[in-house]
Amino acid sequence: MTQTWHQPRRPRIIVVGAGFGGLSAAKALSRMDAEVIVIDRNNYHLFQPLLYQVATAGLSPADIASPIRSILRGQANTSVMLAKITGVEVERRRVRIGNDPVTYDFLVLATGARHAYFGHDEWERHAQGIKKIEDATALRRKILIAFEKAEIEADVEERRRLLNFVIVGGGPTGVEIAGALAELARKALAMDFRTIDPRQARIVLLHSGARLLPTFDERLSEAARRSLEMLGVEVRLNAAVTNCDELGVSVGTLLIESRTLIWAAGVRASQASKWLAAESDGVGRVKVLPDLSVPGHPQIFVIGDTAHVLGPGGDPLPGIAAVAKQQGAHIARVIEARLEGRAAPAFTYRDVGSMATIGRKRAIAELGRLRLSGAPAWLLWSIAHIYFLIGFRNRLAVVLNWAWSYVTFHRGTRLITGPEPENVLQPNCNTRRFRSETA
Amino acid sequence: MTQTWHQPRRPRIIVVGAGFGGLSAAKALSRMDAEVIVIDRNNYHLFQPLLYQVATAGLSPADIASPIRSILRGQANTSVMLAKITGVEVERRRVRIGNDPVTYDFLVLATGARHAYFGHDEWERHAQGIKKIEDATALRRKILIAFEKAEIEADVEERRRLLNFVIVGGGPTGVEIAGALAELARKALAMDFRTIDPRQARIVLLHSGARLLPTFDERLSEAARRSLEMLGVEVRLNAAVTNCDELGVSVGTLLIESRTLIWAAGVRASQASKWLAAESDGVGRVKVLPDLSVPGHPQIFVIGDTAHVLGPGGDPLPGIAAVAKQQGAHIARVIEARLEGRAAPAFTYRDVGSMATIGRKRAIAELGRLRLSGAPAWLLWSIAHIYFLIGFRNRLAVVLNWAWSYVTFHRGTRLITGPEPENVLQPNCNTRRFRSETA
Repeated sequence: MTQTWHQPRRPRIIVVGAGFGGLSAAKALSRMDAEVIVIDRNNYHLFQPLLYQVATAGLSPADIASPIRSILRGQANTSVMLAKITGVEVERRRVRIGNDPVTYDFLVLATGARHAYFGHDEWERHAQGIKKIEDATALRRKILIAFEKAEIEADVEERRRLLNFVIVGGGPTGVEIAGALAELARKALAMDFRTIDPRQARIVLLHSGARLLPTFDERLSEAARRSLEMLGVEVRLNAAVTNCDELGVSVGTLLIESRTLIWAAGVRASQASKWLAAESDGVGRVKVLPDLSVPGHPQIFVIGDTAHVLGPGGDPLPGIAAVAKQQGAHIARVIEARLEGRAAPAFTYRDVGSMATIGRKRAIAELGRLRLSGAPAWLLWSIAHIYFLIGFRNRLAVVLNWAWSYVTFHRGTRLITGPEPENVLQPNCNTRRFRSETA
Repeated sequence: MTQTWHQPRRPRIIVVGAGFGGLSAAKALSRMDAEVIVIDRNNYHLFQPLLYQVATAGLSPADIASPIRSILRGQANTSVMLAKITGVEVERRRVRIGNDPVTYDFLVLATGARHAYFGHDEWERHAQGIKKIEDATALRRKILIAFEKAEIEADVEERRRLLNFVIVGGGPTGVEIAGALAELARKALAMDFRTIDPRQARIVLLHSGARLLPTFDERLSEAARRSLEMLGVEVRLNAAVTNCDELGVSVGTLLIESRTLIWAAGVRASQASKWLAAESDGVGRVKVLPDLSVPGHPQIFVIGDTAHVLGPGGDPLPGIAAVAKQQGAHIARVIEARLEGRAAPAFTYRDVGSMATIGRKRAIAELGRLRLSGAPAWLLWSIAHIYFLIGFRNRLAVVLNWAWSYVTFHRGTRLITGPEPENVLQPNCNTRRFRSETA
């Protein structure tokens, strides 16, 4: 087989997935004499780090998502395709979309990860994860409906269960959602109900390890725990979940009753390793070569959350935006090297630091040897997130929403949308309170 | 039976529906020594006049909806219940929610209307109406996916069908959506595609009558038609739809092929008349007495889109926000009169004028004898709608979105959300364009 990139026609580069990695790859390929096709199953790029704010009614989906077409509008060599990949025909160099094949010369798989339940897929029905916009609006719906049900529930025990919220997983997502949920209950909803006091809601954060945010410095883990507890979150360390069901969540023999379980404990990589029949690690990430190509397939690359790449310490690089972005940019250099017949450079990650927010004026940040917590970290976090949000309009909308929430404690997007809430009043949730004495 | 309102305890007033009518009734009842319960199946009040902007990707759902609890937070005598009414037990004076009854002394039904298909319910599958947030996001999804499909469709005929959009109904909703859709295709999307030119989209507005916006002055109808045509909308008058199916829409023997039909032609009132076994008109509106109570039931009131009330000219009052709001306020006066044993005043509608917008700097307005069209009407329309939007935050968000769109022609909320678009690529929509010559 001849190397297609030695042919005179422009090579076609397909990028699957328009997350941080895919989009960064597409942008880096903009000046190359190639035909670039970005394929995603959604028409928008999602700023995932702020998804927890959609779930807790702080931001609208449109505030953290931009149409891929708009982002790549000015890039003449690039077209965008809304489609779902169903497989890769490695030998014939084409991706499958349903029964339709689309050929490529180079393929970049940046297909991300989904939340995962450690082999207990049956827990998904009870514990809502947050990776997609639909997850976030479903969770928002679930949280808001729990308060609504509690308001009209006559049974004290059931009311307690409805006002118990359990978050599983003490990584950045779990910490951020616990903090945001505490602020929602203690501030935004505080005055809106008549029979319940939302401030009485119990918010429990379960973490299997000995400290929160294990990728951060120990002192920052401790600062985050203290901040959460000041917000009224009950943090339980060394608490590995053994079951999730309609009653609540179990940690060994302890059952925490709850109607709203939130899953932030684990992720699993996309199907990329199956499509390629490539070697993967325990969470399904493809083990790529140092130049990010797949062993035996120098024209296929895997990046971002779905790639297993070792960092300087010998551990796999974490599934964060900065890693995916740098990998996307690296791909362009490798493809260029391939086309010119040069040896491809190896990928090296430049650590740009990491941050997590807990709430109003509460965050932690680790930038090289600098460690921040409290208000300075929060300010830094806010600026960084606004800066990285794609599209000027979104930045403006987010700033205004945040400013508004900061001043008033209100939450603007407290909408319960989706299927009609016919089942708000379940058999176990009755309206006895309203059954009047006049009957 | 004793009149419950002669008992010493506070009367309980149930308001069903938190649209313009219900909310206005609840607010007017705020200072009364009564227990007010507002029941709605959604947790938000929807500013329906701007729903077409959600459908055409101009605004986010949260921009035009406010939590009912927040709106009524400061009203000590009022509680809010998220629930769906399933019936009214008129004799026992209670509303049913599932199997649970809730008693009342006074009942206000402000349950609105849904879009209706003149007895052709089978058309609903093909022609999307817009009355709820979910309708609007479903329509947004449908419109945006049509462009996405057209972009990857190889068949010229199918591409043409995908870029044909037909709006049925030349009232305010139909006119507004036709104008907004034309601006979306001609401006916001213009530069974002590679194989299609969205400006080539054909937008057809079908109206069964001899002129658009028949409730307005004839000159304004004509101005609206001209404005739409300048935007590239094909207006067809005296075009009564005889069929809607997967091929498109039929007007007699003429078939206009289209994959996106939008229904703005008719509404049908809620179930209120069935619940009450009360006399209703042809579209299901309850025929109420001049004081807005239901004949034979002085403690039950029906207002807004679900009430049939004659105006000064002898025609029923139209289903608009101003009518519903004034009726809601009137209810409080009637209930007060009932409690004091006085005769209840009759409702009279004060005409505050009406407006419709077509697009950027294009609108019409009729205020008493004043008739405006073009930019002045548009300015007035913008100010009025922002003023009436409930909640300061929403007003601010809408102003900024509009200002942003006005300056840039961008649309910020072009998100295709909902079920995964696995079926974007249908059997009849193939990707031959991308089947490479290298295969």
